[in-house]
Amino acid sequence: MAQKIILDVDTGNDDAVAILMAGHHPAIELVAVTVTHGNAVHAVTLPNTLKAVSAGNLAHVPVYPGAVVALTEDPKPSSGLNGRVLDLPEPTVRPQQQHAVDFLREYYHGPDGPQTIYVPVGPLTNLALALRLDPGLARRIPRIVTMGGAYRGGGRNPAAEFNILADPEGARVVYNAGIPILMVGLEVTEQALVTPADVERLKAIDTPQARVAAAVMLDEILWMIQEYGWDGGQIFDACAVAEIIEPGLVSTTPMWVDIEVNGSLTRGRTVADISGRTGRTSNVDVGIGIDRARFVEIMIEALSVIRQPTIRPHTA
Amino acid sequence: MAQKIILDVDTGNDDAVAILMAGHHPAIELVAVTVTHGNAVHAVTLPNTLKAVSAGNLAHVPVYPGAVVALTEDPKPSSGLNGRVLDLPEPTVRPQQQHAVDFLREYYHGPDGPQTIYVPVGPLTNLALALRLDPGLARRIPRIVTMGGAYRGGGRNPAAEFNILADPEGARVVYNAGIPILMVGLEVTEQALVTPADVERLKAIDTPQARVAAAVMLDEILWMIQEYGWDGGQIFDACAVAEIIEPGLVSTTPMWVDIEVNGSLTRGRTVADISGRTGRTSNVDVGIGIDRARFVEIMIEALSVIRQPTIRPHTA
Amino acid sequence: MAQKIILDVDTGNDDAVAILMAGHHPAIELVAVTVTHGNAVHAVTLPNTLKAVSAGNLAHVPVYPGAVVALTEDPKPSSGLNGRVLDLPEPTVRPQQQHAVDFLREYYHGPDGPQTIYVPVGPLTNLALALRLDPGLARRIPRIVTMGGAYRGGGRNPAAEFNILADPEGARVVYNAGIPILMVGLEVTEQALVTPADVERLKAIDTPQARVAAAVMLDEILWMIQEYGWDGGQIFDACAVAEIIEPGLVSTTPMWVDIEVNGSLTRGRTVADISGRTGRTSNVDVGIGIDRARFVEIMIEALSVIRQPTIRPHTA
Amino acid sequence: MAQKIILDVDTGNDDAVAILMAGHHPAIELVAVTVTHGNAVHAVTLPNTLKAVSAGNLAHVPVYPGAVVALTEDPKPSSGLNGRVLDLPEPTVRPQQQHAVDFLREYYHGPDGPQTIYVPVGPLTNLALALRLDPGLARRIPRIVTMGGAYRGGGRNPAAEFNILADPEGARVVYNAGIPILMVGLEVTEQALVTPADVERLKAIDTPQARVAAAVMLDEILWMIQEYGWDGGQIFDACAVAEIIEPGLVSTTPMWVDIEVNGSLTRGRTVADISGRTGRTSNVDVGIGIDRARFVEIMIEALSVIRQPTIRPHTA
Repeated sequence: MAQKIILDVDTGNDDAVAILMAGHHPAIELVAVTVTHGNAVHAVTLPNTLKAVSAGNLAHVPVYPGAVVALTEDPKPSSGLNGRVLDLPEPTVRPQQQHAVDFLREYYHGPDGPQTIYVPVGPLTNLALALRLDPGLARRIPRIVTMGGAYRGGGRNPAAEFNILADPEGARVVYNAGIPILMVGLEVTEQALVTPADVERLKAIDTPQARVAAAVMLDEILWMIQEYGWDGGQIFDACAVAEIIEPGLVSTTPMWVDIEVNGSLTRGRTVADISGRTGRTSNVDVGIGIDRARFVEIMIEALSVIRQPTIRPHTA
Repeated sequence: MAQKIILDVDTGNDDAVAILMAGHHPAIELVAVTVTHGNAVHAVTLPNTLKAVSAGNLAHVPVYPGAVVALTEDPKPSSGLNGRVLDLPEPTVRPQQQHAVDFLREYYHGPDGPQTIYVPVGPLTNLALALRLDPGLARRIPRIVTMGGAYRGGGRNPAAEFNILADPEGARVVYNAGIPILMVGLEVTEQALVTPADVERLKAIDTPQARVAAAVMLDEILWMIQEYGWDGGQIFDACAVAEIIEPGLVSTTPMWVDIEVNGSLTRGRTVADISGRTGRTSNVDVGIGIDRARFVEIMIEALSVIRQPTIRPHTA
Repeated sequence: MAQKIILDVDTGNDDAVAILMAGHHPAIELVAVTVTHGNAVHAVTLPNTLKAVSAGNLAHVPVYPGAVVALTEDPKPSSGLNGRVLDLPEPTVRPQQQHAVDFLREYYHGPDGPQTIYVPVGPLTNLALALRLDPGLARRIPRIVTMGGAYRGGGRNPAAEFNILADPEGARVVYNAGIPILMVGLEVTEQALVTPADVERLKAIDTPQARVAAAVMLDEILWMIQEYGWDGGQIFDACAVAEIIEPGLVSTTPMWVDIEVNGSLTRGRTVADISGRTGRTSNVDVGIGIDRARFVEIMIEALSVIRQPTIRPHTA
Repeated sequence: MAQKIILDVDTGNDDAVAILMAGHHPAIELVAVTVTHGNAVHAVTLPNTLKAVSAGNLAHVPVYPGAVVALTEDPKPSSGLNGRVLDLPEPTVRPQQQHAVDFLREYYHGPDGPQTIYVPVGPLTNLALALRLDPGLARRIPRIVTMGGAYRGGGRNPAAEFNILADPEGARVVYNAGIPILMVGLEVTEQALVTPADVERLKAIDTPQARVAAAVMLDEILWMIQEYGWDGGQIFDACAVAEIIEPGLVSTTPMWVDIEVNGSLTRGRTVADISGRTGRTSNVDVGIGIDRARFVEIMIEALSVIRQPTIRPHTA
């Protein structure tokens, strides 16, 4: 039985890879892709998402446009490498007319809601808005597996990881909603570097999704190697999807986690009770490790799948 | 031509009076009532609103349930006099199934949106959520007349007025959305005290709405007289409705206004550039005065109207 | 019997007038002048103070250099009119070698301490530091009469008055130290405008202090008249000294007052419980009014005094 | 040549050990001990310090009483094990009359200042106050070796280490003063656990300081073993002194470090640019490792010294 998921993205290179993996691996049924601001403004992340879905042969997966600004602040889009327009053909699919937040509210109250994991790999604005409109939704979402946060360090700055910093108040709403969360943060993604040799293996695969993934990954990997002196690059969002494909791939420790929204230097920090000394009940399974070799195999598996033609019409 | 309005309430005694005035005065067409948390939790403000609508003979006005928590915080309902359950008969009308935020999004994109003033007299959560879901909505709302804030002083505490303090982040979203705002704050409502003698005049009016208004007002007025040594009581939300009925009743000064969300002592304060020395463009017409005698006459006018039986069905 | 005072200044035009009034009026014995950063950096306020003392024939009054930065922040000196170097002859007196904070610690533990009012008319850094070094000092200072704050509005910005904003943490230490405080804030100084006609009267007085006062005042008054459309200018610090000369000149209301140190828009605000509804014990007699005509007479009195040659040597 | 140091303490068990090591090891000349609030209120840390000095045969070392409250906040003394009164005989020495802050100001402007390392192992209030009174002092202090902070994690809570949390504003002043700092934080002290077997070795040494050190250490070590399941206990402050005795014992990495003073969850955090990606100039040599075995040997060396009777009178 494939695991139903909804993938919430701010595409972005690594989001594109995550979409392709989730859309093709037989262990996952990708119910929908919801889009948010983040790596770039929504006016860029939405077409980027549509491009990834089109080029990756996933036209049957509905894409819902979502939040264009954070819960309480104006958008401050990244100007980094990820902020760019994806270098893929113009999309052949169109977004749904329904707003992502409305889709989440409707879907999770439907029969499949309680069997569908929510997988946000960008800022948490969409779910935060849905929970504000309908607090009861929290009881309908069985689990969140999210790429974001960092239980020890920063990322975007010495204190905060990018996705959380892009909407700290939204993240605080989600982390305090009572929904079980598995957090795939920077301590995990840093242990899952994808090397140029891995990309060469991808290039050798003859599927649309492998071609697209190799294309969007390579530049980012090379940039990280040059910039940080690493052996490879982080494909952040792919780690969360890999954990869905093979539960337990990411090793975790339960911790109490909350989001700092007020600090001058630490706004957006995921404050984690690593030692457990606060005595507060843990609300997050925090990712602490990942089997890099197995992660790469899962990615290659997912990108190698030759999907049977699906005839699953849906309303756009 | 009656002025179309949507009244957003957290009923509350004074909200009830505002509903009754808006629902009966011929200068206003009350399109809908939307409900929010505030004076009490939503589980109290919603039935209170339905009671006021039922007892006030306004069954034709749809009532939409709305936000139960502030944009970023848990609710901290007032435990004061206003927090109580209204002492009125059980309601005979039922709420709409559509969420207030969804109604606002739909209505303001419809043909009547740009002619309909939005009149929030509680925390600003509903419109803040609607704007977060659809920033373009700001261009469809022609004007806001709101009871809330205080350009000089506090209210709920030395720094902040109740409605703003109940959702500072929500208020910040609304005040910065670019929609023209007329703010009826505490400096106005303090100049519009309603006396026991005024209530006696109301009691002499033989309409359902006058009876209901007199009933809900009296206790609050007597409490304020005793507590603060005033000559009467503030019927806060009624002032905003009176300004709709007779534009210009509230005298105003344009000011730049923003909301403090971070202060230890001042969270929820409406920071107003009274002197105009910041050089920032004014975004709010801040109420500074009101003709008390005329206000009372308008209230009595509204509550005296014998409405013709309306046959205006609507979907519930 | 003259009232002993220590005047703490960040000279500044109006500080110069305050020094001259305090130094010459027979109702006051000016024990010392202590200097702080504020209207300008200390490297400007100290020579300005020495110039005022020299030109004003007050060479017998010791001047102590003090805090050059706020309790917790780097200095952000005003670049406004007050920030300028006073256009007076080079000083003939030299500052004491002892730091103002050390002088306060020593003096207030001496026999005259409990009879000496502390009159700070700039940021409150000096006393804050003294209290941090010696909390017991609070019991030795009988009273503070201070120019600073604004119980209703702002000044420097829509929320905060200049002196408090220049060291909010310092002000918080002082306002919470348990020392009786009379706060002469902007609501008082705005009622004590000095007109060009008043300055003409000063010019007609043949004393050194009147000449100096007229010289430093005029430009500022003319600037305020032009900038704000007022009838005259505020000589802020002079109001605090006038209240010492004639106790009761400033009418007051006891209020609970504290300082906001954390707000994004309201840092430095004097939060005052005007209505008394918090139930907190008042810690400040807040100035609410002043008799302008009498204030001007007191200023003229002070500046008219022909002081007998004093031979009161002191160690430098 | 012994290294001159001034040790600033909030005694506390581990402070006592640090005093004894610094007072006896021939590589150090302990010029003075200055006392601050911290592990307990100053009314406890001062007598604790005097007891450690007396029992440890260090009557020739002057002890200066210091700050009793943090730079901007009221004291919130620990109620933990460290907050207790040390179980040692009543002190036979008396504190100096001069305030620690005044001593620092005087000493560092004297001839030995630029050769004397300042070693604060409690909250940083004393030096912060000295720097506020005399910013030029920063150029006279050649180096700070401090126990405090945590470049990765928390300690007192998930975000902040105890000493920094006890006076975040004071720490911010010190860390931004431009003085070279070696920070011995929790990541170091956690690698230098002292075991019960180590304490047995201490007990076998026949010096007053070894007897006192063993007595004050054992309970704390046993408590940590029981509470945290460790093999031993952290003797935090001793690590900083050991680094003075044997420079390089603590391995370090230069980082930009600043103190969060505003966070709701992260107040007191030492925000460190671990990856160096901010591009900000490093201001702190952050301790990242320590040779535990060598640390223990240094401690035993220091506590084994039989000091020749010193006749070095000083004024009290």
